[in-house]
Amino acid sequence: MPPQVTAFKWVPPFAEGYVRDLRVRWALEEAGMAYDEVLLDGEVVKSAEHRRWQPFGQVPAYRDDAVEMFESGAIVLYLAGKSAALAPAGEAGLARVSSWIFAALNSIEPLAFMTVHFEPHVVPRHEGQGPSARAMLQGRLADLAVALGDKAYLLGSFTAADVIMATVLRELVDCGVLAGFPTLDAYRARCEARPAFGRAMAAQLRPFRETAEA
Amino acid sequence: MPPQVTAFKWVPPFAEGYVRDLRVRWALEEAGMAYDEVLLDGEVVKSAEHRRWQPFGQVPAYRDDAVEMFESGAIVLYLAGKSAALAPAGEAGLARVSSWIFAALNSIEPLAFMTVHFEPHVVPRHEGQGPSARAMLQGRLADLAVALGDKAYLLGSFTAADVIMATVLRELVDCGVLAGFPTLDAYRARCEARPAFGRAMAAQLRPFRETAEA
Repeated sequence: MPPQVTAFKWVPPFAEGYVRDLRVRWALEEAGMAYDEVLLDGEVVKSAEHRRWQPFGQVPAYRDDAVEMFESGAIVLYLAGKSAALAPAGEAGLARVSSWIFAALNSIEPLAFMTVHFEPHVVPRHEGQGPSARAMLQGRLADLAVALGDKAYLLGSFTAADVIMATVLRELVDCGVLAGFPTLDAYRARCEARPAFGRAMAAQLRPFRETAEA
Repeated sequence: MPPQVTAFKWVPPFAEGYVRDLRVRWALEEAGMAYDEVLLDGEVVKSAEHRRWQPFGQVPAYRDDAVEMFESGAIVLYLAGKSAALAPAGEAGLARVSSWIFAALNSIEPLAFMTVHFEPHVVPRHEGQGPSARAMLQGRLADLAVALGDKAYLLGSFTAADVIMATVLRELVDCGVLAGFPTLDAYRARCEARPAFGRAMAAQLRPFRETAEA
């Protein structure tokens, strides 16, 4: 049986193309692994039954013959351990992929979330005592640009770390922050140009259209 | 050679006991694995040489004979794959541990960070269009309380998921949020009462005292 991935039947327009099942779909497309989508509406996702699979009523959740999981980062990292298309062979390579996935989701995305959705009201509790979320984010992005250097992808070749990092960075396009880091913006565009990304995006958007037309 | 874990020689008093090497030390103590600490000052951690190990100038970073890593979540999850004290045997159990580690670090901690360090200035960009960070956090904690139920630990028995979740929840004590969720606060206290947590905490604090006395 192919793996199952949960996604929404419909989301408000601002969320189209940004729901996190995109990450899992993209990783599966890169790996050439077929999957079944489990389309949910907002009511089902919050039901007690569904919450035994996804405790926070979010998407995506994932299951296959071996595991049942939630959190896009966890699922993508799990898939990275299954496919040479998503991580270098061996423990050391997978450990680097894991480090970068966590860095994207815990050291960069929280600051991106604050900057995109809560600015300009986000300032430290005690004004003047700490940097703003935007300044912290810009510091992390400067570090990321150094780490990426002139490589095409974080580890040189494409891995699951790029699936997660690119989906974090693309949240920073509209607010203008990413434009300040041309090599990171080019990296994001390079990731989004991959055919597997395009297929994943089309797969996320398709049910929204069908629901709207129904 | 024992694994190496980076930590700070000294931090400002407010950060004592909250630096993230605590998570890795705690996991290693639970697993009964000896390790060497690599103590760094604020200058070294930002050096170009160190950034090849930890790109963002943070602690902890980790290396052993097989891997070189950064991000506390990645390191603790890696250790979970090595020790029966940190995860149930088999792929399904490790997948659940991984799901919960990512949930703690990406679905709960970012909202905790905003609530603790940026309130009361954190409100959505368009006031009235979305919940506050505190309200979102309280929603996630309510879901977490349901998932924990009357179990002692997230998976029933103690795992690496509890190392990460408990260290996220303890950031919410002083601001009063956790008091609204008595079963979660009891869970946090149960985790912190573990002898391995106590040893990890003492190990983090020791160099701060020695640096202060030097």
